[in-house]
Amino acid sequence: MREIYIYDTSLRDGAQGNGISFSADDKKDIARRLDAFGIPYIEGGWPGSNPVDDRLFEDPPKLSAAKLSAFGSTRRPGTDASDDANLKALTASSAPVCTIFGKTWDFHVTDALQTTLEENLDMISDSVRFLKDAGKEVVFDAEHFFDGYYANREYAMACLGAAVEAGADWLVLCDTNGGSLPERISEVVEDVLLTYGTPVGIHAHNDCGLAVANSVAAVEAGATMVQGTVNGIGERCGNADLCSVMPILALKLGMDLGMDMGGLTDLSAGIAEVENVIRPNGLPFVGEDAFAHKGGMHVSALSKDTRTYEHIDPSSVGNRRRILVSDMAGRASVTEKLKELGIEESDDSKQIVDRVKSLESEGYQFEGADASFELLVRKMRNEIRPVFHLRGFRLFIDSVGDGRLTSEASIKVSDLGGKTEHTAADGNGPVDALDNAIRKALSHFFPVIDGIKLTDYKVRVLDGKAATAATVRVLITSTDGQHSWTTVGVSENVIEASLYALLDSMEYAIYKEKEGKSQ
Amino acid sequence: MREIYIYDTSLRDGAQGNGISFSADDKKDIARRLDAFGIPYIEGGWPGSNPVDDRLFEDPPKLSAAKLSAFGSTRRPGTDASDDANLKALTASSAPVCTIFGKTWDFHVTDALQTTLEENLDMISDSVRFLKDAGKEVVFDAEHFFDGYYANREYAMACLGAAVEAGADWLVLCDTNGGSLPERISEVVEDVLLTYGTPVGIHAHNDCGLAVANSVAAVEAGATMVQGTVNGIGERCGNADLCSVMPILALKLGMDLGMDMGGLTDLSAGIAEVENVIRPNGLPFVGEDAFAHKGGMHVSALSKDTRTYEHIDPSSVGNRRRILVSDMAGRASVTEKLKELGIEESDDSKQIVDRVKSLESEGYQFEGADASFELLVRKMRNEIRPVFHLRGFRLFIDSVGDGRLTSEASIKVSDLGGKTEHTAADGNGPVDALDNAIRKALSHFFPVIDGIKLTDYKVRVLDGKAATAATVRVLITSTDGQHSWTTVGVSENVIEASLYALLDSMEYAIYKEKEGKSQ
Repeated sequence: MREIYIYDTSLRDGAQGNGISFSADDKKDIARRLDAFGIPYIEGGWPGSNPVDDRLFEDPPKLSAAKLSAFGSTRRPGTDASDDANLKALTASSAPVCTIFGKTWDFHVTDALQTTLEENLDMISDSVRFLKDAGKEVVFDAEHFFDGYYANREYAMACLGAAVEAGADWLVLCDTNGGSLPERISEVVEDVLLTYGTPVGIHAHNDCGLAVANSVAAVEAGATMVQGTVNGIGERCGNADLCSVMPILALKLGMDLGMDMGGLTDLSAGIAEVENVIRPNGLPFVGEDAFAHKGGMHVSALSKDTRTYEHIDPSSVGNRRRILVSDMAGRASVTEKLKELGIEESDDSKQIVDRVKSLESEGYQFEGADASFELLVRKMRNEIRPVFHLRGFRLFIDSVGDGRLTSEASIKVSDLGGKTEHTAADGNGPVDALDNAIRKALSHFFPVIDGIKLTDYKVRVLDGKAATAATVRVLITSTDGQHSWTTVGVSENVIEASLYALLDSMEYAIYKEKEGKSQ
Repeated sequence: MREIYIYDTSLRDGAQGNGISFSADDKKDIARRLDAFGIPYIEGGWPGSNPVDDRLFEDPPKLSAAKLSAFGSTRRPGTDASDDANLKALTASSAPVCTIFGKTWDFHVTDALQTTLEENLDMISDSVRFLKDAGKEVVFDAEHFFDGYYANREYAMACLGAAVEAGADWLVLCDTNGGSLPERISEVVEDVLLTYGTPVGIHAHNDCGLAVANSVAAVEAGATMVQGTVNGIGERCGNADLCSVMPILALKLGMDLGMDMGGLTDLSAGIAEVENVIRPNGLPFVGEDAFAHKGGMHVSALSKDTRTYEHIDPSSVGNRRRILVSDMAGRASVTEKLKELGIEESDDSKQIVDRVKSLESEGYQFEGADASFELLVRKMRNEIRPVFHLRGFRLFIDSVGDGRLTSEASIKVSDLGGKTEHTAADGNGPVDALDNAIRKALSHFFPVIDGIKLTDYKVRVLDGKAATAATVRVLITSTDGQHSWTTVGVSENVIEASLYALLDSMEYAIYKEKEGKSQ
């Protein structure tokens, strides 16, 4: 028997987040990923409230062990549970678990719901009983429980009592507004556990940046269910991030969640991909930078023992160590970086450091641009030689007739045999025109270029004081559908900086394809 | 006397974050903002370690009340403190406060530092005494204190004892690897306070998503200094976010920080702008979405009483409520903004809000661009009419002969009488060429233009996913030597976005000069 049950609400409460919207297929895809990871409860949505959720419950995803849960609320005031369309949709749904929320804060009952305290108690017990009679496992989400408890403990506890008597399987205490501190959470969870024998869960929001701490505090006080979302998505500041809560419970507190954390980073990245949201690089445990080291002294200590600056082994959550090559770093960082990129070590690390430092003084920064760094090293070692020559290009930007701006690039490229391609392309702005023209020319010689897509383009002005003549750094991320890589270019001219980053990206793609073939 | 002292390390530990790099001017700008907000300690950097920090301490920003702090480490093993270049740079610096970190985890002393436990104690006491003898306020940052304490409590405490005996003013306990849980933090802080009388501080990292919780736990256990960064920037998962810690202490726990939280959101947004980092929308308290409501039921309850779904009043941290379905906010802030800019109020604030919203949906942001906002309002009111017409321009960017890039702009401008100026100019890149050509043409009609200088140029890519065809926002700051103003332009074309911001800047200068003459 596992000790702690994780309940994912990405598909319901997570969908309240700004910019999140799911199709039924998205929901199924995410549910399958959660199930494969081993999460035991997956809240799918609110049947009867929208077509996407109806479709999900009509044709639920095949799950190996996870239970799908359908969400709803207690019956409306002054009605019968068996007449309530919402509750009927829950019992009719394919989900074995039903989760309903009910009011427990007296002020909400009288002011938001505009009914009597007595009627709200009946609403809770009628609704829970109706679902239990239909054979469902019932989770009672006690909305605003912590605020309600402090406003009127007796009434808040009576609400839980109504759910318990009607047979609720779980009492989940919700910090709906996210304003509670861990100490209050612990006290209240302990009180509820002493008062009722029913298992308790926690549902925390991150409005104070404390959702993870509040979830952990509740578990330490005896709660055995944690509700949250992958990557902490959700309304306002989000829900408790399960990608932090789970490894803390499993790896730091040694609790049994019935899951292996080794796939956690993939879970986080994969679900963000389906949601089409960009994960912050600094996400605890699973972020791109979670084990990224920049300070020179840190890197030198890490090479002696990784425990010096890592609280856990990155591989225990499926993440990896990254060494950021930057002006703060020295030889140790370069050596570590080579290892990380799978480039053979050699006795040239001093020359590499010198070259990196000299480029950094021009404004280059390789910490986010592994592909440019790898090209640099392999060129210094003569492992990569130029495969094409840029003979020249011209850009024309016009705003003459109707005021509309047009951008056109012409370009001349030749391969090593001297075959020349001279072509031109339009674009949405000068950099786009240049990108289109380069691709068009190069794909004649290197068909691999056709499959490359740019996915991110960043511009940073390095020295604001020089105003429009300032040095700019451009970072470009490209993908071939499977892998992605980032390149960097620096110049006082934004066009030239973009050009360097573009050319590096293409060169990297051509090199990697050749390397793949020769293996 | 304030109860709790906030110590900002954005400029030092924050600079370890991936993608963060400061010029000396950036550091001064940020220090002034922190000072204006009322933060009492500002760690500027590490003198003697790099040219940026040397410049900062040689010519420190004028601060009204905050103390600037210089960072360094204990002396090297087997040397004399008075011979240590690093410690000498600290005593020679202009900073009244010196913060040095020292090892307190036995394993780090023997394995990373590779010296004896005894020598490390001497290193701590010698270094602290050397700084105290120079008349500095000394903060001792006990690196890895919590890990060290659990590995070998006696030795970790002895390290603090060495600092205390040498006269350290503060003992700051660092959770350097970010792996500790709040309960451990509380226990250890209590033990240290019972053992030594010296004031204690906390320095927490966010590797478990617990940096805010750990900082609050330490304060509740008796710590009186909190180190952290604005928006939580920093290495790996970042430092404790002061924008969460401060309002929790001030607004939730009623502690006296000697600061008003009303400017917190502006502080957060302004510093992110200088750092050129994008703040996550879900940042607690200060994020764009921190008080954004999407759920229909939530919105309806909010209209009855905002306490139903808000844990604090958004205005108490300078933030605002947003309703994501139909944004109802904004009118009050426009009114406030007009007042701030000294523009007469009128009954057109609804039209202004509508216009601002529609421009914001295209990617405009007027927060940092007061001059563009003032032009917008005065044009809507017909107080400013166009004084020149841009008839057209062409940009030529060539890289054909020797590979050097040349940029040239030709431009045609006419005044209201129909007099036309057709001219051309070179530049350091296309935007610079365009700027030079516009100035050259306009200064014929408006000699004031000759005295205007651009001082800052920022580019932000708004939609990374569209790669080189993404929408970009350009911010340009100009000065006439006395005043400076900022304008904004948005387009999918970086040239066009720059052009809009440039034209706004010139128009603003011409308007202000005319207004000055007519008074």
